[in-house]
Amino acid sequence: MPYVNIKLTGDHEAPSRTQKSEIIAGVTELLSRVLNKNPASTVVIIEEIPMDNYGLGGKSITEVRKTNTK
Amino acid sequence: MPYVNIKLTGDHEAPSRTQKSEIIAGVTELLSRVLNKNPASTVVIIEEIPMDNYGLGGKSITEVRKTNTK
Amino acid sequence: MPYVNIKLTGDHEAPSRTQKSEIIAGVTELLSRVLNKNPASTVVIIEEIPMDNYGLGGKSITEVRKTNTK
Amino acid sequence: MPYVNIKLTGDHEAPSRTQKSEIIAGVTELLSRVLNKNPASTVVIIEEIPMDNYGLGGKSITEVRKTNTK
Amino acid sequence: MPYVNIKLTGDHEAPSRTQKSEIIAGVTELLSRVLNKNPASTVVIIEEIPMDNYGLGGKSITEVRKTNTK
Amino acid sequence: MPYVNIKLTGDHEAPSRTQKSEIIAGVTELLSRVLNKNPASTVVIIEEIPMDNYGLGGKSITEVRKTNTK
Repeated sequence: MPYVNIKLTGDHEAPSRTQKSEIIAGVTELLSRVLNKNPASTVVIIEEIPMDNYGLGGKSITEVRKTNTK
Repeated sequence: MPYVNIKLTGDHEAPSRTQKSEIIAGVTELLSRVLNKNPASTVVIIEEIPMDNYGLGGKSITEVRKTNTK
Repeated sequence: MPYVNIKLTGDHEAPSRTQKSEIIAGVTELLSRVLNKNPASTVVIIEEIPMDNYGLGGKSITEVRKTNTK
Repeated sequence: MPYVNIKLTGDHEAPSRTQKSEIIAGVTELLSRVLNKNPASTVVIIEEIPMDNYGLGGKSITEVRKTNTK
Repeated sequence: MPYVNIKLTGDHEAPSRTQKSEIIAGVTELLSRVLNKNPASTVVIIEEIPMDNYGLGGKSITEVRKTNTK
Repeated sequence: MPYVNIKLTGDHEAPSRTQKSEIIAGVTELLSRVLNKNPASTVVIIEEIPMDNYGLGGKSITEVRKTNTK
């Protein structure tokens, strides 16, 4: 019955459909195994945030990626 | 003054503009009636989540819909 | 299958157990009626926020209540 | 290390890239100055909500804008 | 750099400190393994919701637990 | 009209009432100045998360603080 919300960068960093399925399955399994939560009512929502809208260290990820290698 | 966030599936399951208006009006009225909250400052945000990104029972809704009828 | 999150003031403004049940039932019924969503997997989470932590108009509700009647 | 989520109207009211950078920088600076939080791990996420999906006073912002000047 | 929020029932169903550590470690590892996300900036927040405030199927979990075994 | 949610560590790291007022005022002013948003309907909610429930780098902040100075 838990609710899980995952926010990560979209645009060209967006996960593939297969990766999203793995995340959904993996988080649901983790909560079932560790906390004995019912998988049938576990909700997992993945939100893809444009890189201009995601800030870390006072800068958008768009800017962070320009400075950094990876 | 309450804040309400509703997340539901988008893509071809997305609500119409009229349905969204009904949801906004209905939730605001409910909180006013039951809790005497001021409708003028009640915020309702509806987020439409792609079916690949919405998981229930360890599977994305895209996969769930393939298996299920309805 | 929708997910609903409601944030409102707690402390002495917190809703009673009965009011919370009415909100949960009412929102679930609304989404079922307007959008034909399955009530069985509709999740509603009510969060009670201390009045010092809830801001409107640049002031906490604690301060707002001192100034206003109601 | 704090996490900040800002939801505001998108569509033609969406902030520009420059404005989003200013918001990210400004909130991070505020939390560092007032609370001494480490900017390096402060996360700020801006979400742009379609005007049909954002309700205030029981109406969507689309409807609110038709009635109001500004 | 992803942000993860997990909401689950508190009160006597609340996870132990050890279980919370396992959840934090497990989700971070999953996102690193599947999506190659940097664990150092992955944020995981667990919120324990009182059973009266958590609704499923139109009823609070307090009421659900009275009806159900487990 | 924007909605802002700030999550940070509570327990002995919780902000004081005065600091919370400064954060509410500061964020509201920032959104008004940069985006010309109406302060009267800007909502800011601060949530204090127990240190056991806040994870960074795969560990709870409780564990992180044991290892680190500051």
